[in-house]
Amino acid sequence: MPHAPAVPLVVGVDFGTLSGRAVVVRVGDGAELGSAVTEYRHGVLDERLPDGRALPPEWALQVPADYVEVLRTAVPAALRDAGADPAAVIGIATDFTACTMLPTTADGTPLCELPRFAGEPHAYVMLWRHHAAQGQADRINALARERGEAWLARYGGLISSEWEFAKGLELFEEAPEVYREMAHFVEAADWIVWQLCGRYVRNACTAGYKGILQDGAYPSEEFLAGLAPGFGGFVRDKLDHPLGRLGERAGGLTAQAAAWTGLPEGIAVAVGNVDAHVTAPAAGAVAPGQLVAIMGTSTCHVLNGAELREVPGMCGVVDGGIVSGLWGYEAGQSGVGDVFGWFVAHGVPPEHHEAARAAGVSLHEHLTALAAEQAVGEHGLVALDWHSGNRSVLVDHELSGVVVGQTLSTRAEDTYRALLEATAFGTRRIVEAFTGAGVPVTEFVVAGGLMKNRLLMQIYADVLGMPLSVIRSQQGPALGSAIHAAVAAGAHPDVPAASAAMGAVDRAVYRPVPEAVAAYDALYAEYLALHDWFGRGGNDVMHRLKARRRAVRSGPAVHPDPAGEVEAPALEGAGATGTGR
Amino acid sequence: MPHAPAVPLVVGVDFGTLSGRAVVVRVGDGAELGSAVTEYRHGVLDERLPDGRALPPEWALQVPADYVEVLRTAVPAALRDAGADPAAVIGIATDFTACTMLPTTADGTPLCELPRFAGEPHAYVMLWRHHAAQGQADRINALARERGEAWLARYGGLISSEWEFAKGLELFEEAPEVYREMAHFVEAADWIVWQLCGRYVRNACTAGYKGILQDGAYPSEEFLAGLAPGFGGFVRDKLDHPLGRLGERAGGLTAQAAAWTGLPEGIAVAVGNVDAHVTAPAAGAVAPGQLVAIMGTSTCHVLNGAELREVPGMCGVVDGGIVSGLWGYEAGQSGVGDVFGWFVAHGVPPEHHEAARAAGVSLHEHLTALAAEQAVGEHGLVALDWHSGNRSVLVDHELSGVVVGQTLSTRAEDTYRALLEATAFGTRRIVEAFTGAGVPVTEFVVAGGLMKNRLLMQIYADVLGMPLSVIRSQQGPALGSAIHAAVAAGAHPDVPAASAAMGAVDRAVYRPVPEAVAAYDALYAEYLALHDWFGRGGNDVMHRLKARRRAVRSGPAVHPDPAGEVEAPALEGAGATGTGR
Repeated sequence: MPHAPAVPLVVGVDFGTLSGRAVVVRVGDGAELGSAVTEYRHGVLDERLPDGRALPPEWALQVPADYVEVLRTAVPAALRDAGADPAAVIGIATDFTACTMLPTTADGTPLCELPRFAGEPHAYVMLWRHHAAQGQADRINALARERGEAWLARYGGLISSEWEFAKGLELFEEAPEVYREMAHFVEAADWIVWQLCGRYVRNACTAGYKGILQDGAYPSEEFLAGLAPGFGGFVRDKLDHPLGRLGERAGGLTAQAAAWTGLPEGIAVAVGNVDAHVTAPAAGAVAPGQLVAIMGTSTCHVLNGAELREVPGMCGVVDGGIVSGLWGYEAGQSGVGDVFGWFVAHGVPPEHHEAARAAGVSLHEHLTALAAEQAVGEHGLVALDWHSGNRSVLVDHELSGVVVGQTLSTRAEDTYRALLEATAFGTRRIVEAFTGAGVPVTEFVVAGGLMKNRLLMQIYADVLGMPLSVIRSQQGPALGSAIHAAVAAGAHPDVPAASAAMGAVDRAVYRPVPEAVAAYDALYAEYLALHDWFGRGGNDVMHRLKARRRAVRSGPAVHPDPAGEVEAPALEGAGATGTGR
Repeated sequence: MPHAPAVPLVVGVDFGTLSGRAVVVRVGDGAELGSAVTEYRHGVLDERLPDGRALPPEWALQVPADYVEVLRTAVPAALRDAGADPAAVIGIATDFTACTMLPTTADGTPLCELPRFAGEPHAYVMLWRHHAAQGQADRINALARERGEAWLARYGGLISSEWEFAKGLELFEEAPEVYREMAHFVEAADWIVWQLCGRYVRNACTAGYKGILQDGAYPSEEFLAGLAPGFGGFVRDKLDHPLGRLGERAGGLTAQAAAWTGLPEGIAVAVGNVDAHVTAPAAGAVAPGQLVAIMGTSTCHVLNGAELREVPGMCGVVDGGIVSGLWGYEAGQSGVGDVFGWFVAHGVPPEHHEAARAAGVSLHEHLTALAAEQAVGEHGLVALDWHSGNRSVLVDHELSGVVVGQTLSTRAEDTYRALLEATAFGTRRIVEAFTGAGVPVTEFVVAGGLMKNRLLMQIYADVLGMPLSVIRSQQGPALGSAIHAAVAAGAHPDVPAASAAMGAVDRAVYRPVPEAVAAYDALYAEYLALHDWFGRGGNDVMHRLKARRRAVRSGPAVHPDPAGEVEAPALEGAGATGTGR
């Protein structure tokens, strides 16, 4: 008896900071049929290794086996959730945090899995927010400026401590044995693809944004040798590898990966990708001018442009960085939801906690409802949203937060609203940087967890003076991966076509209100004046305060206080701010 | 049988913002034998009159009968507490908040006690922090500048809305019937003396600091007429009255007042005084160069100088304003304990409340203990202490608070400490203004409720780079009044002599720690840079934010928010910040 041909499906897997999410998607229309999440067993190692060895501050590692566990558990669970026949799945694709790096042997075995390196911190995955290589990044930037390296402008003038060269130099200098043993220094985005298809393909996105690959070339051997004797071969020996374009087939699913996932052996495995960038096609927003803001703990802005422009203070511009054939621009705000979360955790008095509890809403919802009662400017505050530094357009992680205008009448909801607004002003500054550099922003598309906050969305529409489109999917990155899987499997000719068929956005969900736009224009002018004074050298107090803080914390303490004699009551750990990315 | 002559005693009564305190003091050595407090029955009327009539914002009234009740209850209670024979009391003196004004008939009856004015807000006592006359103050200042009035410089260039002329003009313009009926516009400091001795004597202190009496003259009739037609006779008809010097005898205790208080009829009643100024003799600090900081919800600085100097941004300089024969300088910080109280009430998360409760300490004590663990600069913050505006040296109540340097690691104790430090920096700025203008500050003496906070005291010593002396009395103003009573009764020849015998201070209780002094020098430079930028026109954002806030609150609201639809949970009144003065 002939049976109806199965409707073709794809699987997208989004590897975040704390967990991996798999989603099963229909190739024809992008319908999300089922999904499942697996938390990483080891989470983020930022205090100690699995063997208990303590880690220094600023470290953040992961365990690669945790990623494989996502393939073994979340993918089959998503298939079950969808009620899908695995045989209908024609491709799988993944996206990952970046820049997240691990050293491997020639066959892709993570060095931390070799018994002799199990106790060696540098042999583990260095997570994107491993920030121990700031000294190396500073030297990279200083030398690049000194030598006038042309690639520096492609990154807004600053290479991040999070990226491949800073982390590689840290490894070279601090763990020479690991560095010697390492055959490849691999993006986790590519390592997971390697596990799926048995083949190492380096994706064009991270190679460009995090690996300083511009116009077909990496930083020169001469430049690298100038950073440290013996480091000249880093690109040639450890980093360089044939590239795959986004949406290309990296290989076929191996028998082992088929066994892990329950998917058919040999189906298409797509080239690796990055969580933020893959969200653009999920929102159907890959045309030049469509800026996608993935708003969560931090915000990442991705935007295609038809031409190459150097935008001051952006994170990077990469040929084919978002979709092949266009210049992919990236910018970002280091702290957004993180800043709101910090305030809610550490700046709100008990009566609000009680009121929220009584109303059965979160503290965020409670403060948002109070803040929503206010007219623009009613709280009398203006804030700078730099609690985590400024990623764009100042590219300065030594900056910090400011609130101006507090009085004895200032209440928690006032400050909360001022912080919401501050992030909107920061976004407008970025949009204006693009526009001013000849990269027009014609549509503002929101994705990410913060799109749930309707007040925040309306503030963004009013501050930007633009309507806001909103991605329809609740799991944009995983859907974006599924779109790449469909392209890799040949079900759609390219990512824009697949995006048109499978991605979805609701247009002009939030429309600017003219009176609010006018009021925010004036407040934005205040933000800009503070932005430039504190951020462009008018007053370098933030740098000095951070330097002093560091000096005090590492040096002998200056304790002025006789009150130190007072017994300080024991305090519970003040609680981590949200870290999901 | 002869009995031993009674040891002579005096009574001092301190009339604060919320209550009056009487203390019984031994004339010979200032020993405080007993005390008692009476809360004002009507407290501060800032929302409605006793009859329920609503008051506009910025209003703050009191009921004069409440003051008499203090005489009737607190004085006898203090005598009982002291176990004192009332017959041993040879004098009584009072101090009061200022500028606190009331309109009276020719015999001193408050107009609000006339039945036809019982429902008229302007007929009540206008408390020092009645701030409804800002518009009048602005016009006074504008006209004074325009006419080049010489007296303006004696007040740092600005007459406050709290003072006699602004309040008088408000009365003239807004309640002409009350103004017409009023025989005298009287300082409460003098009205209470009138109740005690049956005689109206205007004290030199408030006449100078609040009444613009300089070099024997008030603002001219021509000036007053320029403010408003018909106001030219304000001084002549309503305000002017023979003066009494501080420590002089205003009269003898009347039979009625003797009945109220239980004190002997006819004993000396001293000329009225002001709470802050009277504290200097209680601290034994009336010599030129001894600055007394009365630190409570706000801070008042009083300092004698041998010569007249014009100090930019001080509150006032008055001949005999603190003790006869010297120039009395006054400066102030509008918000000190108020700012700490605001932060504790509105910026501290529940875990600290719980920890403080568990430890059986106040939230202030709890945060202080945590803050005391820190080295100077460890929190990475610098703040401006202008939540209530800046009384000295910028004399600008449109300024507001700032915190710079917040990160996701910032905790409540960090901000708390930064606010403590900000007030210390503000104090240093004032000390430097005096020193820079040729009024040397050779000793820094602390009085007031905040002297209990040892960390705060040590921070002040380190920030000022000076040892701190601390008043010994816990009830400085009442003791200061008692000292004036002793002088008025002839038990001591003058206030300095009485102060030497009866006042007391502990010297160099807090000594600056050299490393902390150096660290704070650097942070003070940061404070100054922010102070001048935000406070001297570098960026007038604070003025604009307040103007916008006022415009929004009075005009049609600009509500951008669809989230307004969200039901806002009912909130308990967020709780008043401490108001005791």
